[in-house]
Amino acid sequence: MTVTWQSFHFADRIPSTPSIGSTTVTSPDHVHLSFGFAAPHLFPIEQLNLGASEAIISSGRQALQYSGADGPGKIRQWIRARSEHHGIPAKEDEILVTYGSTQGIDLAVNVLLNPGDHVWVEAPSFFSALQSLRIAGARLTSFPIDEHGVRVDLIEQALLEAESSCAPLPKLLYIMPTFHNPGGVTLSAERRVRLAGLARRYNFFIIEDDAYMELNFTDEQLPTLYSLCPQRVIYLNTFSKIIAPGIRLGWAVAQKEVIQKMKLLMLGGSTGVFTQEILASLLERLDIEDHLGKLKNHYKHNRDIMAAAIHRYFGSDVEFHLPQGGFFIWLAFNAGVNTSQFLQLAADKGVSFVDGRSFYIGQEGLHYARLCFSYCNEEQIRRGVKAFAEAYYEWKSGEVQAG
Amino acid sequence: MTVTWQSFHFADRIPSTPSIGSTTVTSPDHVHLSFGFAAPHLFPIEQLNLGASEAIISSGRQALQYSGADGPGKIRQWIRARSEHHGIPAKEDEILVTYGSTQGIDLAVNVLLNPGDHVWVEAPSFFSALQSLRIAGARLTSFPIDEHGVRVDLIEQALLEAESSCAPLPKLLYIMPTFHNPGGVTLSAERRVRLAGLARRYNFFIIEDDAYMELNFTDEQLPTLYSLCPQRVIYLNTFSKIIAPGIRLGWAVAQKEVIQKMKLLMLGGSTGVFTQEILASLLERLDIEDHLGKLKNHYKHNRDIMAAAIHRYFGSDVEFHLPQGGFFIWLAFNAGVNTSQFLQLAADKGVSFVDGRSFYIGQEGLHYARLCFSYCNEEQIRRGVKAFAEAYYEWKSGEVQAG
Repeated sequence: MTVTWQSFHFADRIPSTPSIGSTTVTSPDHVHLSFGFAAPHLFPIEQLNLGASEAIISSGRQALQYSGADGPGKIRQWIRARSEHHGIPAKEDEILVTYGSTQGIDLAVNVLLNPGDHVWVEAPSFFSALQSLRIAGARLTSFPIDEHGVRVDLIEQALLEAESSCAPLPKLLYIMPTFHNPGGVTLSAERRVRLAGLARRYNFFIIEDDAYMELNFTDEQLPTLYSLCPQRVIYLNTFSKIIAPGIRLGWAVAQKEVIQKMKLLMLGGSTGVFTQEILASLLERLDIEDHLGKLKNHYKHNRDIMAAAIHRYFGSDVEFHLPQGGFFIWLAFNAGVNTSQFLQLAADKGVSFVDGRSFYIGQEGLHYARLCFSYCNEEQIRRGVKAFAEAYYEWKSGEVQAG
Repeated sequence: MTVTWQSFHFADRIPSTPSIGSTTVTSPDHVHLSFGFAAPHLFPIEQLNLGASEAIISSGRQALQYSGADGPGKIRQWIRARSEHHGIPAKEDEILVTYGSTQGIDLAVNVLLNPGDHVWVEAPSFFSALQSLRIAGARLTSFPIDEHGVRVDLIEQALLEAESSCAPLPKLLYIMPTFHNPGGVTLSAERRVRLAGLARRYNFFIIEDDAYMELNFTDEQLPTLYSLCPQRVIYLNTFSKIIAPGIRLGWAVAQKEVIQKMKLLMLGGSTGVFTQEILASLLERLDIEDHLGKLKNHYKHNRDIMAAAIHRYFGSDVEFHLPQGGFFIWLAFNAGVNTSQFLQLAADKGVSFVDGRSFYIGQEGLHYARLCFSYCNEEQIRRGVKAFAEAYYEWKSGEVQAG
């Protein structure tokens, strides 16, 4: 007997595309300039192994039990001290440990928004954040970035216009102010102060996603938006970029009443206690400044290798801002170029990248491409950029002939 | 200068109460009959330590990297084999590893429902699932359980009535068919077949939360709803009850198209690869039947201790179904009793329990209480039940005087 199944109407909120930039490895020679990942050889494996043994042996049974949404305290003490080091005021009850910054974004979004609320984002912006906002039913408007970060002047102008025309004001601005993904740019001090003032004046929240802030190749450190306006900022950071992404732990800093609301949405209680205990043991035995120094030297060196390779293989056919930290170079081609059209061609030549349109809420950014310099080694970066250039010029010559 | 802050309208979806049954420890003597937790002394610490070392040393750099939503394969292979052992057909692409079954519930709910959709649940039901459903905007209707599980006859009658009166049909039924939390009962084979048929006929999905199925004190095993109707069931299970809750890993089994949709909602990619690798190494070196045998002996013994203590201290003033597996005894007092009213009194006497109304969608179940026999030792169980009885009789005598 054949049963005929009626169709089932699944939720409308399911995104139609899988998460971007994390395709599985194809051939061993393939160069993944798409991966926004840390360099695996810099993971602190030895300390992690010692930390794991200690966590399991000495506090094993506790580490394997549930605990309330607060989780065990050691990690939060470390985060508090590190935040203070960066001028971020955070008491322990203003800190929430999350599954990576992805869960931080998701909790923040779900605490702040009802479906239909208006959210303003940067153009370009981090694709996972855009997807989280879409799933929450946010209405998105975007504002361009330049070499000093998002155009706060345009945001202010739009707020004024919305106010005078009684148009909806945003409830939330999602921003990555430091070593922006994908733009690589950092919001200037002057714009930070101005933006914090706007949040106060127009009563919207800011999610400050600061995932790359520790990977700063310079001595300059700017105040966080959180320190400028803690009442209207949820600050997010992660261990994924400074320890290892497989750990999947991050944190949020916000006023106690906001943290409490976020905890109420963490239905399963705290994030995995086991992993928190292991990470805490690791951090106790890790000289964090020394470790970060190694990471920054390596990533800065890789950035220079990639920038040189881009100059060599593209000449003046692309433009980019040289990032002073983080993982990414954001390439701008001429306006007519559509990088999505040579994604496959590049993959066939052994290199992957992320096309520009993935970072925009509409059909924009087609002539951009994101290249990541953190994951690959020197040789791979050179070979990858070369293959990427070959794909571009082959696509371009095809375009010219077709035209 | 004093800045006056405007009020901010946070999301309406934030629940007003924290998660239930996980209050932080007060005094060391306190007996937590509220905790639905595993017994810490049964955690496989030695194997876990060896597993952690192996995972970190031998596959450390991979274990610390991100991976796609599929995650590493070893855990899914174990789940596939174990599912087969229980007669659950599951290919590897029909399995998704989640952060405990809580994330499984959340992903399943968010894949199936739009806000306003109708969902049918058991009365009583698992409070975290109820909260997840409320946050997703579900409209809830509940159906009572008896000693053979949920009253499928009443569900069928309601479906017939809804159909004939053109009232809304449910899109989803959330059910815990085996060693129900809190009821302790198991859905009979006959009701399972009938319920699977209803899902097919009326085109709704079933979330089958089978968290306690391995903790079966008998030799009898009933077919899963999933095996009866894989096209309309999302099957959930967890390592929290059989290995350790701090690991925070669980899994979902469903048809490939459903699993793919769930993956699309996992914005951060797969659950922590690091913990998955450690757990996989542990499972490789663990004799699971031997381990489960120890757990079942211990929990069954604890159940008998608790049942005897209840008889001793309450006589015939309470009724309960003796559970054949799982963690819980669900006590029914006389109809006039309100267990919420002596929660604090019991806490003052050194014992915590969960009051009945936490498990219902409305103001029902006031005369029930959930006691957990898994977490405490014999002495604590006896002392806890005694203190609980003292609190009840003291409350009752106060009621009588007041009356």
